[in-house]
Amino acid sequence: MSKKWIYLFEEVEEAEKYVDGKWDKVRALLGGKGANLAEMTRVGIPVPPGFTVTTEACNAYADAGEQFPEGMWEQELEALKAVEKAMGKKFGDPENPLLMSCRSGAKFSMPGMMDTVLNIGLNDVSVEGLAKLTEDARFAYDSYRRLVQMFGSVVMNVEDDLFEHVLTDAREKAGVKTDSELNAEQWKVVTAEFKKIIKKETGTDFPQEPIEQIKLATEAVFKSWNGKRAIDYRNAAGIAHDLGTGVNIMTMVFGNMGNNSGTGVAFTRDPATGENILYGDYLINAQGEDVVAGVRNTEAIADMKKDLPEAFKHFVDICDKLENHYKEIQDVEFTVEDGKLWMLQTRDGKRTAKAAVKIAVDMVNENLIDKKQAVLRVAPEQVNTLLHPQFDPKAKKVAAKEGKLLAKAVNASPGAAGGVVAFDADLAETWGKEEGKNVIMVRPFTRPDDVHGMLAAQGILTSEGGATSHAAVVARQFGVPCIVGASDVKIDLNKRQFEAHGVVVKEGDYISIDGTTGEAFVGEIDMIRPEFEEQTDLITLLEWADEFRRLEVWANADNPQDAQRSRDFGAQGIGLCRTEHMFFEERLPIMQRMILAIGEEDRSKALDELLPFQRSDFEGLFKAMDGLPVIIRLVDPPLHEFLEGLYEELKQKENLTEEEQQTVRTIESMHESNPMMGLRGIRLGVMRPGIVKMQVRAIFEAACNMAKAGIDVKPEVMIPLVGHVNELNIIQPQLEEVAKAVMAEKGINVEYLFGTMIEIPRAALTADEIAKVAQFFSFGTNDLSQLTYGYSRDDAEATFLLAYVDKKILPTNPFQTIDRDGVGALMKMSVEKGRSINPDISLGICGEHGGDPNSIEFCHLIGLNYVSCSPFRVPVARLAAAHAALNN
Amino acid sequence: MSKKWIYLFEEVEEAEKYVDGKWDKVRALLGGKGANLAEMTRVGIPVPPGFTVTTEACNAYADAGEQFPEGMWEQELEALKAVEKAMGKKFGDPENPLLMSCRSGAKFSMPGMMDTVLNIGLNDVSVEGLAKLTEDARFAYDSYRRLVQMFGSVVMNVEDDLFEHVLTDAREKAGVKTDSELNAEQWKVVTAEFKKIIKKETGTDFPQEPIEQIKLATEAVFKSWNGKRAIDYRNAAGIAHDLGTGVNIMTMVFGNMGNNSGTGVAFTRDPATGENILYGDYLINAQGEDVVAGVRNTEAIADMKKDLPEAFKHFVDICDKLENHYKEIQDVEFTVEDGKLWMLQTRDGKRTAKAAVKIAVDMVNENLIDKKQAVLRVAPEQVNTLLHPQFDPKAKKVAAKEGKLLAKAVNASPGAAGGVVAFDADLAETWGKEEGKNVIMVRPFTRPDDVHGMLAAQGILTSEGGATSHAAVVARQFGVPCIVGASDVKIDLNKRQFEAHGVVVKEGDYISIDGTTGEAFVGEIDMIRPEFEEQTDLITLLEWADEFRRLEVWANADNPQDAQRSRDFGAQGIGLCRTEHMFFEERLPIMQRMILAIGEEDRSKALDELLPFQRSDFEGLFKAMDGLPVIIRLVDPPLHEFLEGLYEELKQKENLTEEEQQTVRTIESMHESNPMMGLRGIRLGVMRPGIVKMQVRAIFEAACNMAKAGIDVKPEVMIPLVGHVNELNIIQPQLEEVAKAVMAEKGINVEYLFGTMIEIPRAALTADEIAKVAQFFSFGTNDLSQLTYGYSRDDAEATFLLAYVDKKILPTNPFQTIDRDGVGALMKMSVEKGRSINPDISLGICGEHGGDPNSIEFCHLIGLNYVSCSPFRVPVARLAAAHAALNN
Repeated sequence: MSKKWIYLFEEVEEAEKYVDGKWDKVRALLGGKGANLAEMTRVGIPVPPGFTVTTEACNAYADAGEQFPEGMWEQELEALKAVEKAMGKKFGDPENPLLMSCRSGAKFSMPGMMDTVLNIGLNDVSVEGLAKLTEDARFAYDSYRRLVQMFGSVVMNVEDDLFEHVLTDAREKAGVKTDSELNAEQWKVVTAEFKKIIKKETGTDFPQEPIEQIKLATEAVFKSWNGKRAIDYRNAAGIAHDLGTGVNIMTMVFGNMGNNSGTGVAFTRDPATGENILYGDYLINAQGEDVVAGVRNTEAIADMKKDLPEAFKHFVDICDKLENHYKEIQDVEFTVEDGKLWMLQTRDGKRTAKAAVKIAVDMVNENLIDKKQAVLRVAPEQVNTLLHPQFDPKAKKVAAKEGKLLAKAVNASPGAAGGVVAFDADLAETWGKEEGKNVIMVRPFTRPDDVHGMLAAQGILTSEGGATSHAAVVARQFGVPCIVGASDVKIDLNKRQFEAHGVVVKEGDYISIDGTTGEAFVGEIDMIRPEFEEQTDLITLLEWADEFRRLEVWANADNPQDAQRSRDFGAQGIGLCRTEHMFFEERLPIMQRMILAIGEEDRSKALDELLPFQRSDFEGLFKAMDGLPVIIRLVDPPLHEFLEGLYEELKQKENLTEEEQQTVRTIESMHESNPMMGLRGIRLGVMRPGIVKMQVRAIFEAACNMAKAGIDVKPEVMIPLVGHVNELNIIQPQLEEVAKAVMAEKGINVEYLFGTMIEIPRAALTADEIAKVAQFFSFGTNDLSQLTYGYSRDDAEATFLLAYVDKKILPTNPFQTIDRDGVGALMKMSVEKGRSINPDISLGICGEHGGDPNSIEFCHLIGLNYVSCSPFRVPVARLAAAHAALNN
Repeated sequence: MSKKWIYLFEEVEEAEKYVDGKWDKVRALLGGKGANLAEMTRVGIPVPPGFTVTTEACNAYADAGEQFPEGMWEQELEALKAVEKAMGKKFGDPENPLLMSCRSGAKFSMPGMMDTVLNIGLNDVSVEGLAKLTEDARFAYDSYRRLVQMFGSVVMNVEDDLFEHVLTDAREKAGVKTDSELNAEQWKVVTAEFKKIIKKETGTDFPQEPIEQIKLATEAVFKSWNGKRAIDYRNAAGIAHDLGTGVNIMTMVFGNMGNNSGTGVAFTRDPATGENILYGDYLINAQGEDVVAGVRNTEAIADMKKDLPEAFKHFVDICDKLENHYKEIQDVEFTVEDGKLWMLQTRDGKRTAKAAVKIAVDMVNENLIDKKQAVLRVAPEQVNTLLHPQFDPKAKKVAAKEGKLLAKAVNASPGAAGGVVAFDADLAETWGKEEGKNVIMVRPFTRPDDVHGMLAAQGILTSEGGATSHAAVVARQFGVPCIVGASDVKIDLNKRQFEAHGVVVKEGDYISIDGTTGEAFVGEIDMIRPEFEEQTDLITLLEWADEFRRLEVWANADNPQDAQRSRDFGAQGIGLCRTEHMFFEERLPIMQRMILAIGEEDRSKALDELLPFQRSDFEGLFKAMDGLPVIIRLVDPPLHEFLEGLYEELKQKENLTEEEQQTVRTIESMHESNPMMGLRGIRLGVMRPGIVKMQVRAIFEAACNMAKAGIDVKPEVMIPLVGHVNELNIIQPQLEEVAKAVMAEKGINVEYLFGTMIEIPRAALTADEIAKVAQFFSFGTNDLSQLTYGYSRDDAEATFLLAYVDKKILPTNPFQTIDRDGVGALMKMSVEKGRSINPDISLGICGEHGGDPNSIEFCHLIGLNYVSCSPFRVPVARLAAAHAALNN
């Protein structure tokens, strides 16, 4: 007996048995859509009869070189018979044909996958039977032309524009504005045109045999899994390529059977704000694709109440039932056929970050889910968008007064963005990815093959479509600010420009969009950060997260302002204060004098001048972090970095003095071929200990002063770039001596630690030796990744690294997410070796990875004590740390 | 009972028992000199009675804050009594005083240690007794002034020049040339002056009490172990700092008791050539220091036969006995006192590389040692000096004809060297180490505190001293070419110049010295390499070495000439052919055209032009290595390296054409901040596969052509800079396809491998993954060390690395010797991971370390299959591999 490749919707029990009752496995087998259709059927929600071809069949088809696996087609024919029996109609019956829809459905929702094909089963003969039976020739011929158009474009790969041109001509010829105004005869003509186009483009006729139609549609879905669009989407969304898609074949129901019919899509809560109200669009007398494609402007779902009151009531009940069943916001599609409601799809609703947080918190309060679930419901990266820049309200007001407001439309995905207008996805990608421009992609509406441009853009604006249009869904998912349905924006793709309220914006002109409010402006507008304190739901959620996480979250902050902000965001310490950032501005000339000093006297004079600056910086830092640890890293970059401006200046100048010439020569002699592997970090400390001694003096003077003022100071001195324990052996005692001398002078003792960064592979490899001297480790994963891979942080992304990620040579950019196999192996080794010497050694991470959720999970897994990240990533890290603890 | 701190020479049996009969432990306990004195005593060779204070006592003294350990001094007094008894004299007896010498003696010979103090036991009173007893007042007072002088400078740290000035004055005043011409009264005056100097300089009188003298001398030896000179020497020679020194206190015998007395130093074979003849210097009527210090010109040892025939015969017998006993060339000191021969010291003789090889081979032929011992007798690094450059004999003849020959003197340490003259050690060090100049250090003679300069110099020339002078011994040990006793060279240290045969050479002028022949020339002379084929002893020794080693030795060769030379030296394959070296000279413009090509067509046209060049290179290589494997590395450096000259040229030029301006912009756009971690190696292959495909085509066209011509070709293609297995996954199949296509075109198959370098830390960390694709690994330890340490190979030595080695932060330069703890840990990991996937994977090393003996030992220990080194290092590596196998 051949394998079971097909499941009727009512066979879910059997499917569950087959996969040991695990919902995730049902979803893997049937795809999300198929699994949910089966689940709804099981709990008594009205779903049109149908069946699902499994994802395993899809994979088997691809593996066999595009051949159906053994027994599949026979099973599909049997399933069709079961549907015929349930509906009392025959597939291919010329008089009362059973019509079917065909949809793809993978484990994870994928807008990049195949579009729906509707009305399968119609042909030149049965369309007439349908017309007679329904006594509605317009409906029948409209249905038939839809089948031919969808089948042509989706299954037979004919350019859809060719069909759209015919439609436009037909409307013009008939002197009507919308498709629904065309009559049966006109649809007949259109359909004939469509069939000619198919024949011309593909050399094949549109298949008249319904069984042939369903076979080709099934194959088309299978093939779409490995189409470019789908692969691109999976790459962007991080979905595995070996899951396969299911094929859902379902009895057609018709929302376009007159004004007692309709169709719609809705969310059980507002996916933008999270408010607990039904949210969505519907269209009366239409089929679902009209709503989803965003080509017709829709009505709000609430308006359905007056048009179709009974159906609406039923719909509201079903939404409640679904939320109670799935314990999640649902994104549903439905059709009302002649007053009867049918649910065509349900799935967990994609939502904005803000909505995700609010829904999670609300559902706890509604006793639908518990705190753990709530914490896991919000992706750490989503929290980041809540702290995204927004336009300065004052600047927006000014812009509006100046007549720069272009549109106020649907706020489809929050956040503010500005950039140059690009009118197609390829250009948006070229400008955004290759030329590094900020781009706003502007389109009438978007389609799955626009996704590459949308991902490369800072923001998206469409003149058509609603909150559930393709553009809106994709933008929300990827956190790209987006406005849709901006009907005031008149796009002229031929002229490559749009006009709004009399303002003409050409391709390449700068506009700003506010995805939170739905506003678009011409020109650039100042941005500000949102206030964390006002986001009470987020604060609640993060407090719950704190209950579950084991990792502490510290922040990288170089000044008291950043330290204070970090603390406000929940940071439990400063994991990295980069002292070299304190050597710029008015201090730079002194720093330069120190570096260029010839005699020891001049040098130490300059150092003496720098000391008070550093001390006051540190005082502010200790004050802001009262009671919490502050790790201060000693100077790290090569000294010539401080001389670059001076060098440029002198090179421009004519008639240099002898002294200036000497300075030029000195700076040139400091040139290094590979400065990242040069004289920096502790190497500088060893070769020129004066600087780091000054810094340690400043740290301890500040610490003692603050301690005397009643502040609880916890200074920790971090020595960077150690590769051999002897570097610490030689320099750490000298620095500890300075610390002790200062404390003796000040007559007060503070508790302190001396530690090191682990950022050189050799330090990781010999961490046991280093742990004998260093009192803490902080992983400098930026440099560690740089050296472990041999990828220059300054160059690699521009020369090959992004191409490597594109080509899938690397799964991710190792400067964004810790490479667990390589860099991670070194980290793990360090942890084990370090703890073998000093079980209580404090271990943390202060590289950029400290704010990356995947990397945070890794830090949790290898047992670090804390992650330290940029202030704005602290909330993200708090949530990510909780996820790491809950998921492992 | 307190520990035994003192051993009489005749107590060696007890010493042996104490240390379980292990000679090495006896040497560790008593120091080399003490152990050998005891050993000679034991086998009946005449040694003046005496005893040794142990190295343990020295360490205990230092540990206790410069206090004799408990019981030591009492034991020393007892030992003195035993000597008194043996000699029938009393220490401190005013009429017939027993006189003693005091010498340091560590486990390893250390010219940096304390000088000898002689004649201990004399004072103002006993000197008169000695004069009466010997009826030789001149001898007595000369002996006394020697004690005061040595004691003053060595024990009491008075500047020796102060004493020398007095001597010079005394000679001038007396109108004599040599010290031996001064009479008793004159020595009395000198001695009185000496005592005044001591009082003035130290505030203390010269101690009159003999027991006090011996106590202070013992302490001085202990202290000298931690003196700067000794520490510097140990650092340079790689001797551990915790060994301590012994103190040898021995009855004085006098070589200066008239013409029936004498003293000398000798080697049992010629330490420069290895010839089996007695070699050395002696002086009649003199004490040993006169010979060793090189201040008096000595007689050849053979001349002793006529002066002291009986003693000479006895001496020859003893030398034979010693060689038979120690199975090694001996370096001995002796004194003849009134016709009776006393042996004062024996030790294994330091010798030149050439002598080491000859002696080892000869001793096997003489059945003194076996082949294993012979192989272990020659240090691998010594072999290198045998292949050292020598002056082109023709160029030397021309120079001589042109009157450039400055001197012909003692050929103390072989090899040719040229450089600027520096007249003192500090300057030699500054110029040599800090400024990177080639320096020839020129001195009248050298002392231990000159060693830092000698090590920084390319060569050494002294106007005084003999083959066993300080300069000669040190130079030989460290392989620095050296000429001594060049009495034609008149040095004027005040004028900072010398004059020889009318030629005046000022400090900073260039001279050339030939340490093999003893010639010195003004100016620079062309150098050539010695012929390996003529060095039959070396060839024999290396053949013996081959019997013991497990590691194969391959060579790095980029052209057929180098390949042939490597093969002549015994290479068993080419481990690295760097193809980019083939892109210079006439090929460079084509390469540049290829890199700068805008269209794919231009690029592939340039590649087509490069192909025949590469093919013909490879053909030559395969021919030279007929039957042996040849690993060819695909292009490795960043492409902009090929454009640097062009860029400089264009930047100089005015009025650039539009095309040239474009070229400048293109080159500038290729700039990388850290090119070592940039777009190079396989990254280049991935981004621009055309180049490597061309190279693989050239390799296989060459291989097929040669195979057709009957050559046994074994091509192995090496892909550099792999960090992630996916890089191989994407590029290796493309290259294998090219290989297969070429073999199909040529109609012949050759066996081949595709492999990779392990030079990125991540590759080492994931070697198991990489071994699934790569068929061989070759460790690129240059890059691996660079990235593991984060030390730029281009910059680090100039900025901090040498200082790190100086400061002992690093034990050695990791670019010279593999850092076993860090880089080595990665290599070990790679070996284990690689073999876990493919137990037969071939593992080698092709970095510079492949020719470094210590690193070769490490490669042996971790189980590599071969080391690959530069052609001239192949013999070194063969020997080092044998040592590694024999020692482990």
